[in-house]
Amino acid sequence: MRRVELAKKVLSENARLAAELRERFHQNGVLCLNLVSSPGSGKTSLLEQTLARLPQKSRVAVLTGDLQTENDAIRLSHFGFPVKQITTGGTCHLDAGMIDHHLADWDLADLDVLFIENVGNLVCPSSYDLGEEAKIVLLSVTEGEDKPLKYPSIFFKSEVAIITKMDLLPYVPFDMEKLIENANTVHPGIQILKVSCATGEGLNAWLDWIEMRREKVSPSRAVAIT
Amino acid sequence: MRRVELAKKVLSENARLAAELRERFHQNGVLCLNLVSSPGSGKTSLLEQTLARLPQKSRVAVLTGDLQTENDAIRLSHFGFPVKQITTGGTCHLDAGMIDHHLADWDLADLDVLFIENVGNLVCPSSYDLGEEAKIVLLSVTEGEDKPLKYPSIFFKSEVAIITKMDLLPYVPFDMEKLIENANTVHPGIQILKVSCATGEGLNAWLDWIEMRREKVSPSRAVAIT
Repeated sequence: MRRVELAKKVLSENARLAAELRERFHQNGVLCLNLVSSPGSGKTSLLEQTLARLPQKSRVAVLTGDLQTENDAIRLSHFGFPVKQITTGGTCHLDAGMIDHHLADWDLADLDVLFIENVGNLVCPSSYDLGEEAKIVLLSVTEGEDKPLKYPSIFFKSEVAIITKMDLLPYVPFDMEKLIENANTVHPGIQILKVSCATGEGLNAWLDWIEMRREKVSPSRAVAIT
Repeated sequence: MRRVELAKKVLSENARLAAELRERFHQNGVLCLNLVSSPGSGKTSLLEQTLARLPQKSRVAVLTGDLQTENDAIRLSHFGFPVKQITTGGTCHLDAGMIDHHLADWDLADLDVLFIENVGNLVCPSSYDLGEEAKIVLLSVTEGEDKPLKYPSIFFKSEVAIITKMDLLPYVPFDMEKLIENANTVHPGIQILKVSCATGEGLNAWLDWIEMRREKVSPSRAVAIT
């Protein structure tokens, strides 16, 4: 019982801090997106392709989480936008305190979009609100169409499911209709985008979605990201 | 600090129970293998192909973990061996207590090999000893050769790394030499097996490894599993 009470306390402290972050994002008109997936589903690749397509004037930044390495920040730093690595030292998820800490020397008034790349884990990150406007779950076609049923929490909490590695579809037994059915069973109406970072398929639709969502957060802002 | 102390207490209670399980496995000459990977790397597929190749007389059983569904136990029950689902209800890993509980009505004296399929998660299961003889980490070629460096704990603790979905190698930018280098950086001498459940590649080597390992645990037992 002590364990349950303590877990509740940790999560309620996280929720309090996440609410503060969300308020700061809103005040500054920042669209904050929290990307969650299994290891190797392509979060970093999607962010690389996203940053590569944004005009240099875009006011975009990335916080990227990992257990140990700084590899993802190195990969993402080539595009000229601010990028910071959050190394969790083994912790299986990002939490609101880590986001708050790593934002300390950035001025949110300078940003339109903040991407957060969570630790590769389809389970634990779904329990930790980071103050984001929306969670985005990524699932590659090689992982199987059953995953929304097996990992329902993250699919329930995500506004969009991005199906990645569409270029591998001809080579794997992935049933797209069943995936759409499974995702809608867990989260009726969830938006599904299909992308391939290898061929570029679906990336424009993803950028359009970001822009649509950014306009909702800050309708009066003149400078679009795309 | 209270959180750290409590986490230590939970882990030390788990370690105590895992030591008891390990002793029971040894007394009964049972080879217990704990399979860990990301969601969708192919743990269930590997077990399906393994069970399909075993003689019906083999004394083999499976405990399979999942957050919510019984899908994996249903898939694995077609081969005539005892299979039990452990549904964690959202918990991100199996622990020794769950194993102990689900073994209650099986007689270990009837078994030579017990496969445990952990929850799909490359992070948290590495912290929980289940009393297994060996951890086995699976990584599919679609996940990328950088994963041993990014998720070092599970690669450090696993006796074997099984590289799955080898049939997809021609279609993905996976550098096998680099993977071997990365895995050996984290765990010098780790055994690496390459398999494809689609083509059957490497499955005999995996079965040979199981038999070699089973003989070590119970050298006097006459009935081999293969």
